[in-house]
Amino acid sequence: MEKLRQLLEKVQRNDVSIDEALKLLKDLPYEDLGFAKVDHHRALRRGVPEVIFCQGKTPEQVVMIVERMMKKGTNIMGTRANAAVFEEVKKVAPQAVYYPEARIFAIKVEPVIKNKGVIAVVSAGTSDIPVAEEAAVTAELLGNKVERLYDVGVAGIHRLFMNIEVLKKAQVIVVVAGMEGALASVVAGLVDKPVIAVPTSVGYGANFSGLSALLTMLNSCAGGLTVVNIDNGFGAGFAAHQINKLGGQEDEASIP
Amino acid sequence: MEKLRQLLEKVQRNDVSIDEALKLLKDLPYEDLGFAKVDHHRALRRGVPEVIFCQGKTPEQVVMIVERMMKKGTNIMGTRANAAVFEEVKKVAPQAVYYPEARIFAIKVEPVIKNKGVIAVVSAGTSDIPVAEEAAVTAELLGNKVERLYDVGVAGIHRLFMNIEVLKKAQVIVVVAGMEGALASVVAGLVDKPVIAVPTSVGYGANFSGLSALLTMLNSCAGGLTVVNIDNGFGAGFAAHQINKLGGQEDEASIP
Amino acid sequence: MEKLRQLLEKVQRNDVSIDEALKLLKDLPYEDLGFAKVDHHRALRRGVPEVIFCQGKTPEQVVMIVERMMKKGTNIMGTRANAAVFEEVKKVAPQAVYYPEARIFAIKVEPVIKNKGVIAVVSAGTSDIPVAEEAAVTAELLGNKVERLYDVGVAGIHRLFMNIEVLKKAQVIVVVAGMEGALASVVAGLVDKPVIAVPTSVGYGANFSGLSALLTMLNSCAGGLTVVNIDNGFGAGFAAHQINKLGGQEDEASIP
Amino acid sequence: MEKLRQLLEKVQRNDVSIDEALKLLKDLPYEDLGFAKVDHHRALRRGVPEVIFCQGKTPEQVVMIVERMMKKGTNIMGTRANAAVFEEVKKVAPQAVYYPEARIFAIKVEPVIKNKGVIAVVSAGTSDIPVAEEAAVTAELLGNKVERLYDVGVAGIHRLFMNIEVLKKAQVIVVVAGMEGALASVVAGLVDKPVIAVPTSVGYGANFSGLSALLTMLNSCAGGLTVVNIDNGFGAGFAAHQINKLGGQEDEASIP
Amino acid sequence: MEKLRQLLEKVQRNDVSIDEALKLLKDLPYEDLGFAKVDHHRALRRGVPEVIFCQGKTPEQVVMIVERMMKKGTNIMGTRANAAVFEEVKKVAPQAVYYPEARIFAIKVEPVIKNKGVIAVVSAGTSDIPVAEEAAVTAELLGNKVERLYDVGVAGIHRLFMNIEVLKKAQVIVVVAGMEGALASVVAGLVDKPVIAVPTSVGYGANFSGLSALLTMLNSCAGGLTVVNIDNGFGAGFAAHQINKLGGQEDEASIP
Amino acid sequence: MEKLRQLLEKVQRNDVSIDEALKLLKDLPYEDLGFAKVDHHRALRRGVPEVIFCQGKTPEQVVMIVERMMKKGTNIMGTRANAAVFEEVKKVAPQAVYYPEARIFAIKVEPVIKNKGVIAVVSAGTSDIPVAEEAAVTAELLGNKVERLYDVGVAGIHRLFMNIEVLKKAQVIVVVAGMEGALASVVAGLVDKPVIAVPTSVGYGANFSGLSALLTMLNSCAGGLTVVNIDNGFGAGFAAHQINKLGGQEDEASIP
Amino acid sequence: MEKLRQLLEKVQRNDVSIDEALKLLKDLPYEDLGFAKVDHHRALRRGVPEVIFCQGKTPEQVVMIVERMMKKGTNIMGTRANAAVFEEVKKVAPQAVYYPEARIFAIKVEPVIKNKGVIAVVSAGTSDIPVAEEAAVTAELLGNKVERLYDVGVAGIHRLFMNIEVLKKAQVIVVVAGMEGALASVVAGLVDKPVIAVPTSVGYGANFSGLSALLTMLNSCAGGLTVVNIDNGFGAGFAAHQINKLGGQEDEASIP
Amino acid sequence: MEKLRQLLEKVQRNDVSIDEALKLLKDLPYEDLGFAKVDHHRALRRGVPEVIFCQGKTPEQVVMIVERMMKKGTNIMGTRANAAVFEEVKKVAPQAVYYPEARIFAIKVEPVIKNKGVIAVVSAGTSDIPVAEEAAVTAELLGNKVERLYDVGVAGIHRLFMNIEVLKKAQVIVVVAGMEGALASVVAGLVDKPVIAVPTSVGYGANFSGLSALLTMLNSCAGGLTVVNIDNGFGAGFAAHQINKLGGQEDEASIP
Repeated sequence: MEKLRQLLEKVQRNDVSIDEALKLLKDLPYEDLGFAKVDHHRALRRGVPEVIFCQGKTPEQVVMIVERMMKKGTNIMGTRANAAVFEEVKKVAPQAVYYPEARIFAIKVEPVIKNKGVIAVVSAGTSDIPVAEEAAVTAELLGNKVERLYDVGVAGIHRLFMNIEVLKKAQVIVVVAGMEGALASVVAGLVDKPVIAVPTSVGYGANFSGLSALLTMLNSCAGGLTVVNIDNGFGAGFAAHQINKLGGQEDEASIP
Repeated sequence: MEKLRQLLEKVQRNDVSIDEALKLLKDLPYEDLGFAKVDHHRALRRGVPEVIFCQGKTPEQVVMIVERMMKKGTNIMGTRANAAVFEEVKKVAPQAVYYPEARIFAIKVEPVIKNKGVIAVVSAGTSDIPVAEEAAVTAELLGNKVERLYDVGVAGIHRLFMNIEVLKKAQVIVVVAGMEGALASVVAGLVDKPVIAVPTSVGYGANFSGLSALLTMLNSCAGGLTVVNIDNGFGAGFAAHQINKLGGQEDEASIP
Repeated sequence: MEKLRQLLEKVQRNDVSIDEALKLLKDLPYEDLGFAKVDHHRALRRGVPEVIFCQGKTPEQVVMIVERMMKKGTNIMGTRANAAVFEEVKKVAPQAVYYPEARIFAIKVEPVIKNKGVIAVVSAGTSDIPVAEEAAVTAELLGNKVERLYDVGVAGIHRLFMNIEVLKKAQVIVVVAGMEGALASVVAGLVDKPVIAVPTSVGYGANFSGLSALLTMLNSCAGGLTVVNIDNGFGAGFAAHQINKLGGQEDEASIP
Repeated sequence: MEKLRQLLEKVQRNDVSIDEALKLLKDLPYEDLGFAKVDHHRALRRGVPEVIFCQGKTPEQVVMIVERMMKKGTNIMGTRANAAVFEEVKKVAPQAVYYPEARIFAIKVEPVIKNKGVIAVVSAGTSDIPVAEEAAVTAELLGNKVERLYDVGVAGIHRLFMNIEVLKKAQVIVVVAGMEGALASVVAGLVDKPVIAVPTSVGYGANFSGLSALLTMLNSCAGGLTVVNIDNGFGAGFAAHQINKLGGQEDEASIP
Repeated sequence: MEKLRQLLEKVQRNDVSIDEALKLLKDLPYEDLGFAKVDHHRALRRGVPEVIFCQGKTPEQVVMIVERMMKKGTNIMGTRANAAVFEEVKKVAPQAVYYPEARIFAIKVEPVIKNKGVIAVVSAGTSDIPVAEEAAVTAELLGNKVERLYDVGVAGIHRLFMNIEVLKKAQVIVVVAGMEGALASVVAGLVDKPVIAVPTSVGYGANFSGLSALLTMLNSCAGGLTVVNIDNGFGAGFAAHQINKLGGQEDEASIP
Repeated sequence: MEKLRQLLEKVQRNDVSIDEALKLLKDLPYEDLGFAKVDHHRALRRGVPEVIFCQGKTPEQVVMIVERMMKKGTNIMGTRANAAVFEEVKKVAPQAVYYPEARIFAIKVEPVIKNKGVIAVVSAGTSDIPVAEEAAVTAELLGNKVERLYDVGVAGIHRLFMNIEVLKKAQVIVVVAGMEGALASVVAGLVDKPVIAVPTSVGYGANFSGLSALLTMLNSCAGGLTVVNIDNGFGAGFAAHQINKLGGQEDEASIP
Repeated sequence: MEKLRQLLEKVQRNDVSIDEALKLLKDLPYEDLGFAKVDHHRALRRGVPEVIFCQGKTPEQVVMIVERMMKKGTNIMGTRANAAVFEEVKKVAPQAVYYPEARIFAIKVEPVIKNKGVIAVVSAGTSDIPVAEEAAVTAELLGNKVERLYDVGVAGIHRLFMNIEVLKKAQVIVVVAGMEGALASVVAGLVDKPVIAVPTSVGYGANFSGLSALLTMLNSCAGGLTVVNIDNGFGAGFAAHQINKLGGQEDEASIP
Repeated sequence: MEKLRQLLEKVQRNDVSIDEALKLLKDLPYEDLGFAKVDHHRALRRGVPEVIFCQGKTPEQVVMIVERMMKKGTNIMGTRANAAVFEEVKKVAPQAVYYPEARIFAIKVEPVIKNKGVIAVVSAGTSDIPVAEEAAVTAELLGNKVERLYDVGVAGIHRLFMNIEVLKKAQVIVVVAGMEGALASVVAGLVDKPVIAVPTSVGYGANFSGLSALLTMLNSCAGGLTVVNIDNGFGAGFAAHQINKLGGQEDEASIP
């Protein structure tokens, strides 16, 4: 906004004519007019990390982006990052932490404001765990308490009932399931809360790389179920965070 | 086999030469050689109706087929038959009965041998009932006891648990479900019996005329689940009958 | 729970033996054990209507369900209801109200607890309005304040910017778009809040009945975007309500 | 049930009040209430192996699961297991046996109850044999007699007719076929028994990884045909076992 | 070619210069240069009708095209023509004949040269007959002897064997089948002749308007099988004619 | 821009403080800042009609939009408009003209600036003509000279060569084709100019409502070919106009 | 037939009773009854090779099949055979020849009867050549004269016209094309002969592994075009041979 | 044309008869008649390179084609060329230049005529850059000025607005985007110029290898948008060049 203020001051001082001012105004970068990212006010976003999607990038490219971001002093997280990427990142950011199952690395510079509510992350099979962990770690890095409830697929549905307290306690629930993807419907049928479903590409045959789970979830009759892209654990964790935030945040004082 | 026996007798009596016999043998209709429908022995099939798929046929065409079949003296059933078709059929077969929800008419000429076991037909939503009824009535006409358990979809899964006795009592279970189709997985996860899943075309949007339910069912992790074509209630009822038959049949004496 | 309590009392009084009690316990309906719909406590759901999906049902069938529900004394809403259905419903429930664009009828018996936050419903083109209205009216009937922002598609994106205050004010945003479906991404890129995207089947050619908009929305890079089924305005309105509820509810006193 | 019995005894002895009992009852794990896996009574399942789906798991993960299962003393089988996995399993379970074509390993601890009937496994081409073997070995490990009839595809259909006795003898038939998948229809057209069709991903071009065979089988007009997922030999073998069991089991005495 | 000859004569007579001739040559319509339809020499095509695809045309449009064609004096056939179209055509061409099952009308002006060989048209179900008739009548109008073998689907495969003489006698075989489409493979596996497969859109569910039959036929392992578009009976009849022609034609004298 | 100028003048006159100005500036509607439709300067668009997509709108809705637009004094065109729509439009705009084959109505209020170049519209079959006319009439209403070349499909490719002068004369070519869609490739292979391909939904069977033509056109190896949506004649005509404009416009004086 | 003759002779001699004969007759292998491969009489097939589809088989498996076939004394060809397979085959069949572009090996034991007509194999791009060669070499090994016309795609369509004599000379034409696949339509539009189209999986993007070319070819309006599976050069060459055979065969004397 | 002239001279001199001339004329290669590539006159194409699509070709094959082209003295460019291909090309053409991100090599022999207008290449994400560079470098090698505007995806849409001058300056705009592909709609909604959209296969899950971006772009409501195949940067650059050429070319003198 500084440039805009300077321009207006020049108008006031008659240093520029109205016509010149109109012309200059049109040439001012969009951001200077204050429209960019309308409600991303810094205050509300204290500690929210910037995110790098590492898939399809070389370790060198990731390091370059990390270095650029570190200068801004924000927290950073990298998704779909393999061990090789982390090794390189660690060289420039020794405080970086790696979550191998989630394939995420995180660089913490400032504390994150905590949300009050709990996010439950539920998954169907062992092979869905990487996507579930991507959702869970994402939510944690964004300042949420997360409870994990894994391996409770429909074929062994009694295990879900045995752990129903986890669902009761949560504000938002992320359900991760491949193959038939029916778990999301079952969970959303049991609770009266926002449920975010993540289809995974786990399976074979007529699974068609996650299409079967995606369609199952989109067609669920259970109210309140919304869906993200196949294998998009990050997206689910991020959306769960945005919802959980509505339930209130801890006092700043809570930041260590 | 009679023609074949007569031919061999002629060979024995030297009424035909070997060469002539070889030639005649080749010209004998395939069926007379006993290969046709290898195990469709009449005895085992007592009362099993002949089936007419009425969809895409005019009432006149259906009546013509009914008349031809009635001459053989077997039971008859017509599937995908609307009321108009039944009206015409009744004119030539006054004993015909119509099951409007199942869209089936039946003409009973001889009694059917009863299977000992029970077939359960379970369905998810109100709109799945026509397909469920097609399965149930088909199974009944083939000589099976059927228990219906409707409107127990995943969104109201507790109703399934409240009626679990029906599943426990059955030898075979047919599960009919549209939309997400998850009910089949849930049922097959609860029991240790053959479960036949019927996806229905009920739904809208990314349901793609039953594709979503079909894929869900094919991808189920629950053991023992097999699938038939979308909306194919008849096929499911027929397959359930073939399986139920393995559990034994009532004495002939049981036939009224 | 009453039946369970009575049983325990009988055990205490030695009116039933332990073995008998175990057997009876197993035969108690599932619901009596208190597991059904785990957190659907009546108190929290005061005024939440029961829902009838009218598509594929005859007016007679809808009326029958309405009458059954009215006996429970809860609010009722019917979705995908055409004028003919409403005419019949009105005969048994004269207080019923019809929202023609949303294709919803509502029967209000008791007041609804109001959520504090606002839900914005944004739509791209004129033909998307029925689905947008289904979402908006659903959210209103569930006790939410709704702001509508229609006809702000990507081809006329400046109209979105001119009305950005609506987005700023909302707790949750529902975006309804057919054809290319890009509006959801643009909105989610501008705000830092939960955004629920509803693809519509509006369009022709390679739109494939909403598939193009669905895929666009699922593949959005904008964080916090989740998706419901094609044309599923009800689902979006319901999920938005569940999220908005987290932001707090008005005092009971607010209920007129 | 032991915990439940103990609780009731405490109620009887007035060691706990009714109110406390109600609260404790609610906290009892679901399984203790006897609902879990409703008819999986141990007696009926004597010898039925627990199953590990090895695809996508490291040898180490498989070994860990094997060790955990071995403690329960049940038989174990691993599907989609390559030789490397088996090498590791053998180290902790020297009695493990490997079926390389079926890609299955088995660890036998207790004898399996045998079913009386025979299961026929029929396959179309040489490349379908791994899936056919997965079905056949699965059925054998579950206690069934299996007859194999391989390489009888539609292009050489006379070989099927030459071996028609195998079909006549079987209680249930599993048909494995890729490419056009027509063999399943031909077999189901010849017999009057349950036929389970397994499409395989064998083929190229418009085969689309098994889609062509899957669709062919789902669309078969032959009565009694049901279908499992592409390449799901295990599922077919398991379902065939469940059906075959209905035909009766050998006396316990038959267990060596 | 006449214009070209006249031009060359002018060059010879020096009525036009070389340069002028080159320029004129370039302006000569393409057809006059003799390239159009390179081997469609009139002599070889004696009696071959011109074809009108009537689907999507109004009766008036069809009549207009018929009148234009009649001036050329060739035979005419109209495919996908309903009774209403034929009624109008008959008014301008009283000799027109209508084949209702094939939905074809024909106007015969000159005799057709007959091919020596026989074309067999085989179909699976009753509902495939319109497409089969389209193929058969097309082939007949093009001068071929046709033998029909209908209702010999895979579910009743013995009927095919009983009529195997029809296949033996034919030079080319057209197989028409919907649903699973397996009949084409079975026929091509029995004979050593060109087989043209026509998938039909008959069926429901996962038939996807003929896709299942199309894929089955494209994936057939039986040698010599080629495929035309779904429901394209005309294309199959036309291609069968072109192949049958290679086996020789009757003497001109054979033309009545 | 007037509001902005007034604001700056107030700043100059010290009628508002800098801080107030900054705040007011932020509240100015987006459009007033001059960003809306960045290069849609009125001068360049003289006579370009506003467009109404009538499909899915009632005649009443169309009339309402027409009346609103007529107040702005611009030309108007309505696409996908049937005769019923036009009848209603004519009542409020008697000067409206209807192009029945193109399904377009136009209301001309001011003259259109003419482009110098010619646009050729080429189509394959009779049934593609409505889409071709939509493209041609759209281009004409936008101020372009159009040459039509219809019925030159690949099956009669010599007719294309006979009329090659049309292709030579054009600046831009629109090719409209259904079924196999190969005509676009052939045309683009013959010329060195921008070619816009429009797949149509004309056809049946494996045409899948235009998908086959769409894929053919997207996969063309011929350089310079770009594609619009199935049946989108308007889009092709509009894009062709934008390209043709680059070749220069007639003097204003040319406007009658 | 020998066994059948012996049986009849025994009946004649009264060595077996009629009843025994009937029973034995039923047990006679199907082939002995003369039904197997109804018209594959040895005489007509002199020299026709047996075919091995090598894809997905190990060199060892191929060698095993080759050895078994060599004992029958027929010619052999292996398709989809890489160099490694050929190296192993050569060890057991030193006379084996390898066609690397066609990925075919051939072992010639007896001469092949030659067909009189010529088969033209036409292909669009350089990358289509392997499939074109598979078709061409297959046709040659089956006894046909083949003319190749490569690299005549639609983008350079004039090269096709320059070589039109090749099309004129042929009895049957095989057209191989990937990407848009339009070449098949163009060729079939130019000639009045059987044309077999082979879509190839060459391309990228919306080519979808050959789907675009497949759909183009199936939707061609050009008469007489039939299609085989994507990349199925062998199938096209085989079908072309069956068609070409109808045009007559050289005298036996022609066999060297 | 020389051969044609010589033939006409012979006719004039009576060295050949009219009949002979007609016959010879028919045998003249198509190209000699002047039809080949109708408007590819050398003069208009000065400097336009010949193009080699290197994907799927060995370095040796590419070198062979390069050598053949170099003899004609035209410029050459190779697309989809990896470094290994370039290494080999450089050995025979030392002046060859490699653009690694665009995967293009170029061999410049003669100067290219420059177009006056500017082409803007806009891309959404980092991973879309290779395709964007393929478009940009192609356009540059064809004689166009190119402005790049990368990383302006919809999630960060303000960066597009900040650089809107690039769009204003351009004659034609190429937009490259994967995932949701919405950027193309946004750009086309902002400008009134030809926009060519290139979907990329960047993404995962329900992106289906670029299908989601392709459908989004085809369904855009923004006028003037046309689309090329997934990842087809070359095609977009080429089409943009053809359009840009219409805006005028620099004087020959401008060629260095």
